[in-house]
Amino acid sequence: MASRVNDRSQASRNGLKGKVLTLDTMNPCVRRVEYAVRGPILQRALELEQELRQGVKKPFTEIIHANIGDAQAMGQRPITFFRQVLALCVYPNLLSSPDFPDDVKRRAERILQACGGHSLGAYTMSSGIQMIREDVAQYIERRDGGIPADPNNVFLSTGASDAILTVLRLLVAGEGRARTGVLIPIPQYPLYSAALAELDAVQVDYYLDEERAWALDLAELRRALGQARDRCCPRVLCVINPGNPTGQVQTRECIEAVIRFAFEEGLFLMADEVYQDNVYAEGSQFHSFKKVLMEMGPPYATQQELASFHSVSKCYMGECGFRGGYVEVVNMDAEVQKQMAKLISVRLCPPVPGQALMDMVVNPPAPSEPSFKQFQAERQEVLAELAAKAKLTEQVFNEAPGIHCNPVQGAMYSFPRVQLPPRAVQRAQELGLAADMFFCLCLLEETGICVVPGSGFGQQEGTYHFRMTILPPLEKLRLLLEKLRHFHAKFTQEYS
Amino acid sequence: MASRVNDRSQASRNGLKGKVLTLDTMNPCVRRVEYAVRGPILQRALELEQELRQGVKKPFTEIIHANIGDAQAMGQRPITFFRQVLALCVYPNLLSSPDFPDDVKRRAERILQACGGHSLGAYTMSSGIQMIREDVAQYIERRDGGIPADPNNVFLSTGASDAILTVLRLLVAGEGRARTGVLIPIPQYPLYSAALAELDAVQVDYYLDEERAWALDLAELRRALGQARDRCCPRVLCVINPGNPTGQVQTRECIEAVIRFAFEEGLFLMADEVYQDNVYAEGSQFHSFKKVLMEMGPPYATQQELASFHSVSKCYMGECGFRGGYVEVVNMDAEVQKQMAKLISVRLCPPVPGQALMDMVVNPPAPSEPSFKQFQAERQEVLAELAAKAKLTEQVFNEAPGIHCNPVQGAMYSFPRVQLPPRAVQRAQELGLAADMFFCLCLLEETGICVVPGSGFGQQEGTYHFRMTILPPLEKLRLLLEKLRHFHAKFTQEYS
Repeated sequence: MASRVNDRSQASRNGLKGKVLTLDTMNPCVRRVEYAVRGPILQRALELEQELRQGVKKPFTEIIHANIGDAQAMGQRPITFFRQVLALCVYPNLLSSPDFPDDVKRRAERILQACGGHSLGAYTMSSGIQMIREDVAQYIERRDGGIPADPNNVFLSTGASDAILTVLRLLVAGEGRARTGVLIPIPQYPLYSAALAELDAVQVDYYLDEERAWALDLAELRRALGQARDRCCPRVLCVINPGNPTGQVQTRECIEAVIRFAFEEGLFLMADEVYQDNVYAEGSQFHSFKKVLMEMGPPYATQQELASFHSVSKCYMGECGFRGGYVEVVNMDAEVQKQMAKLISVRLCPPVPGQALMDMVVNPPAPSEPSFKQFQAERQEVLAELAAKAKLTEQVFNEAPGIHCNPVQGAMYSFPRVQLPPRAVQRAQELGLAADMFFCLCLLEETGICVVPGSGFGQQEGTYHFRMTILPPLEKLRLLLEKLRHFHAKFTQEYS
Repeated sequence: MASRVNDRSQASRNGLKGKVLTLDTMNPCVRRVEYAVRGPILQRALELEQELRQGVKKPFTEIIHANIGDAQAMGQRPITFFRQVLALCVYPNLLSSPDFPDDVKRRAERILQACGGHSLGAYTMSSGIQMIREDVAQYIERRDGGIPADPNNVFLSTGASDAILTVLRLLVAGEGRARTGVLIPIPQYPLYSAALAELDAVQVDYYLDEERAWALDLAELRRALGQARDRCCPRVLCVINPGNPTGQVQTRECIEAVIRFAFEEGLFLMADEVYQDNVYAEGSQFHSFKKVLMEMGPPYATQQELASFHSVSKCYMGECGFRGGYVEVVNMDAEVQKQMAKLISVRLCPPVPGQALMDMVVNPPAPSEPSFKQFQAERQEVLAELAAKAKLTEQVFNEAPGIHCNPVQGAMYSFPRVQLPPRAVQRAQELGLAADMFFCLCLLEETGICVVPGSGFGQQEGTYHFRMTILPPLEKLRLLLEKLRHFHAKFTQEYS
């Protein structure tokens, strides 16, 4: 490295250019990071939007961002109660306004009392405001039928992503074949692959079973683990339930089997449960890993390490922009938990408005309170519409030849499989693109619909998918699905 | 590692305990992280607060948190205009209320127009809302006397800490003697040492000159660099101006010399300028590194890589809880800049309320607008009081035998040097504590005043300091300084 520095000194004497930080000298782990949800397809969508604004003629008038689970960007209205409380927290002069219900005021006062200087502008403890951690713990207890939750095991975070990164950061260790291996489902939400690349951990893929509505298959988990032991030290098992991008909701039996597997194989469990309120299919129900774990009794309940993640960004609230989330850790080594508290303290604290929102999510208006009725109605409306959109998506896609879509049991996405003609695959190869990336780019150019190719989430070799959110308003979604179906037919014809 | 896994499998068959994640198996880099500002001293302060609440008798009635630059927690009032605009953004129904000035409404509408679905609840671009990036660029231009700033070089962030971590993450590479070395001032703000430990980069200390009011000394910088070359590849130079914890404000000459040095030695410059509005001393003035760099002309202006950080947490606004910040990168390699955009996209976006606040900070009410007068008065009041407190702190400390405090030219802290008697140093050693940690713990136990020992920031061997914020209200600060002075005298006597 000394020679590079000398080159640079030489260059400076000659007045020549020589960057310190280049693709060659930068962190190689960061170079390997990929994040498809905001990858090349979104870049192109933004360029097209720019062109539309400049008056360039296109076969469409707007870009429809079905690439990311961003409900409010798609027109979903925020929950009135949440925003009223937050407005009062932000500008406490409004506490004396006659225009806000009493329960809104009481809630805002309660949150402000728990803030330093009674202001959202003060730092909080790094793990979040203690009162909110307690409210989260009570929410978890209610959700899990009374199984206790300890507020000291709850860490508020900057969205769930931040908490997932923190827990992975603790778990990553070792060099060469002793490097930490992390089992992740394929298809996965690409935060996981991106984080593992950044942290230089080993990604161990286990494939979900598309034939069984993307169910998690124990034999496949065992295969993946067995093969991984040759190249790394697998120590972590990630599950996403309800599934992103698959929309699958795991059965209780499956969760039990996964816990048993993790325990027997010595794996730390990470359960991404941010879609816990997004379950639509009849017969499907959300079971938290924590609840199942505890109900299994010892040794699982007393020993199996688990981290469960939640967020204010999804479910019925969709408050992505506030970046609120939490992780509950279970059976974590006490010393490690102190290390985790130390690690997050470097980032000072999660954004306080997001913490306040999380408090309202875990502690919504009670039936006796004036805001209850409206809250309940707004919540139901969002969830009912999402259920209708999940059904519609599955239905329209499955009427199309060459498209197959598993039931969207939960979460916010469909992940249909598309047949692509061999000539399209070949053309994509010539362009140096994954075949489904080529399909999605063509779709975008012709219809303005922005979806993410399956290759960004992972899929069985030789199969092609895309992820599309179910978030656009119902009538718009119907049109969009029709457009997509037509485009696929045309594309198939063109390349056949 | 296979043996550990087998042990665990064995243990599970026996129903025995065996954690996957322990101090021994966790990320060793995370173990090495230390963050004094929220370290053991704060833990003890929280315990004491708990005891006070439980009615335990103490020689004080409250803990005074002078450990962290958290203005609103110390009673500073938020700027009315900022909070009004934000309340309207959070709850747009208020846009029709007669209780808000027109400019507040226009500002809120403008921000909401730039949000997806016209809501703070939608994700934004990962680099932040484009309109706000443009406003930041215009602010930088005004600040720097018209020197152009490109909005595409501005990345909004989750407080400045997040942006600093991102840029360091890009810069860290290499193994063994080729590992990236990062020059940081001593004393430093411990975010830097914590980040370098976490990222496994090499910390290279250069000592600020306490005899010259903590000025940066070029010869010392050269010494540090020269010695570091034997053990790492120094590629980054961090400066904090105005200084944290030192309160020093760099002269223009010094900044020029630093830039020349960085250029000649092939160092990427990171300028932590979050206290840019906090300059109190007569004759001191804030000069941004960007401005000086540009005014130096080529080759510096055209080639020297620089990242400059700012935040909504400090200055006159003190909105720490909202976690808003930005970094402007200058002369960064275009391909690396794309990698940076990709890296931050994994975390989706900075909190939108913090982005909105940043927009108001860089674009406050104009003299023609109805909110201007009040805004200006509030801003001036905060800054004038901070200046008075900076002066008072220096004065009271320097009247005390055995305490020496350099002028607090800027920022929000004093970093006085304290003489500790040899017997106190010995006692600390017996307890396994740094001597100034021992002093600060005793201070906390006896007075309830929470300050951070100098060892957490770094200091010359054999010298002892502490960092104390100047943020408590003036009269409280006066009392506190007196208490501290008395305690030091007593402590000195006790251990002499």
